[in-house]
Amino acid sequence: MTDAIFDQRAADIRTRVARQGFMKFISAELDDLQPGLCVISIARRPELLQQHGFFHGGVTAFLIDNGTTIAAATRMKPGLAALTAEYKLNFVSPAVGDRLICRARVLKPGSMLSVVAADVFTLADDVEKLTATALATIASVDAAKVAPKG
Amino acid sequence: MTDAIFDQRAADIRTRVARQGFMKFISAELDDLQPGLCVISIARRPELLQQHGFFHGGVTAFLIDNGTTIAAATRMKPGLAALTAEYKLNFVSPAVGDRLICRARVLKPGSMLSVVAADVFTLADDVEKLTATALATIASVDAAKVAPKG
Amino acid sequence: MTDAIFDQRAADIRTRVARQGFMKFISAELDDLQPGLCVISIARRPELLQQHGFFHGGVTAFLIDNGTTIAAATRMKPGLAALTAEYKLNFVSPAVGDRLICRARVLKPGSMLSVVAADVFTLADDVEKLTATALATIASVDAAKVAPKG
Amino acid sequence: MTDAIFDQRAADIRTRVARQGFMKFISAELDDLQPGLCVISIARRPELLQQHGFFHGGVTAFLIDNGTTIAAATRMKPGLAALTAEYKLNFVSPAVGDRLICRARVLKPGSMLSVVAADVFTLADDVEKLTATALATIASVDAAKVAPKG
Repeated sequence: MTDAIFDQRAADIRTRVARQGFMKFISAELDDLQPGLCVISIARRPELLQQHGFFHGGVTAFLIDNGTTIAAATRMKPGLAALTAEYKLNFVSPAVGDRLICRARVLKPGSMLSVVAADVFTLADDVEKLTATALATIASVDAAKVAPKG
Repeated sequence: MTDAIFDQRAADIRTRVARQGFMKFISAELDDLQPGLCVISIARRPELLQQHGFFHGGVTAFLIDNGTTIAAATRMKPGLAALTAEYKLNFVSPAVGDRLICRARVLKPGSMLSVVAADVFTLADDVEKLTATALATIASVDAAKVAPKG
Repeated sequence: MTDAIFDQRAADIRTRVARQGFMKFISAELDDLQPGLCVISIARRPELLQQHGFFHGGVTAFLIDNGTTIAAATRMKPGLAALTAEYKLNFVSPAVGDRLICRARVLKPGSMLSVVAADVFTLADDVEKLTATALATIASVDAAKVAPKG
Repeated sequence: MTDAIFDQRAADIRTRVARQGFMKFISAELDDLQPGLCVISIARRPELLQQHGFFHGGVTAFLIDNGTTIAAATRMKPGLAALTAEYKLNFVSPAVGDRLICRARVLKPGSMLSVVAADVFTLADDVEKLTATALATIASVDAAKVAPKG
């Protein structure tokens, strides 16, 4: 993929992600986009926590859901869209901290299926700590088929 | 478990869930609680969608995350808390519809680990359709250890 | 799918499974084949056990691996082959007993991806007990592409 | 963990693995054992293949099942045994080659649950290629409770 093609791809992805009501609602940010990589994060706010003051597991899952799909999309050809088939996540430590950061990377791109790994870190006092790890399967589908008309 | 013990357990669970900022923020509702069962759902709102107007996968994941943990908690003894170890979810059809409903059921309760299944349905025109299915592992831990002091 | 088409499909599947060296080596049996369903089992023998005399987890995983793929294959059109993309399994009780039986069922067939669930039971004194449960994603691929020439 | 304690632990693990009938039956080898790491592999033989001449997915799953559990066991204290709670694996390329090698590493050890990752490679012409990747949850249990008497 040439730089120009990737830049176009990245711009398309940013446009689509900006249209996600849920992304905006919970104030997640798309921090970085490289071929095969995506970094997405979210700052701590009371609305994102569970009863013990940690980030809710559902917030971690959202970052994994979106981060792995976007990472797969960075490697897809024009006309194809990334559709999440499934993922699995393990929680490894409580999600305390000021920011939750998901780093997703494509382990194996494919014309039909991509396998993507993601690690989620909490940031506290400038130190990142692993809070969850995930493995996802993302399908490549005809973009015209997933997008509603109009 | 006698009815009285379960009623107390259910009341405790409702209190804890009510303290989850994220649950309130996205307006999810705890619809039903039985020994080994939990139904949790959420109404469609623009803030919960992705770019094609479907419920965002992260919302589905949140319902699974919370629903499976709560279902496991219904079977735990006083003094124990449910902590999500991991889960895996498969998306089976687009999450269109007016409401997203997660039905979680304990397949195997355990003193240390419980295995919980969940199905997520979309509701449209009074018809439920399966949109995602999941399998989760929930740990039983000393409640005093997970709750922060004060 | 008419009965005649399914019968042909089932015969093709049985032929392919019979060519699996590993299936024969560990003496697994294809017990039943219906549209969307597969039952595969294996009798207890010392070679299939772990150090405590239970069936080895790897045997349970093999049954799930093969059973879910075969179940998906029963719903595929001629010319397509089933390829396992991924699966997740939870062990719920020790695999004691005389026979290990895997029942796999297609939850959602798809032209590209099928989602398949499987439960593995141990049989002892005519009583079946759940020992493991699984969720799998199976891809449909052009049979000509996966089969080596000749 | 001192070297002497680890050496004893490793010796115990090797003794237990040597008692697994299935390990011997399929001729798998325990190649390396370090604190938090396990390498287990198997040479190609016709009995281990599926109908296209690749290693059967069930063989890959067996290596992951055993490798992740053994890796977790290397970090456990005396008196504790490793019990597989669950795992998920993704197949990323066909398992062609002369040898199948599973490298498992503990991502997060825990007194109750350990999270372990594993990659499985095929070896052909001295080149290793990733064929599958996995994420597992392994429980620490009282060794006296899982081992049958006598």
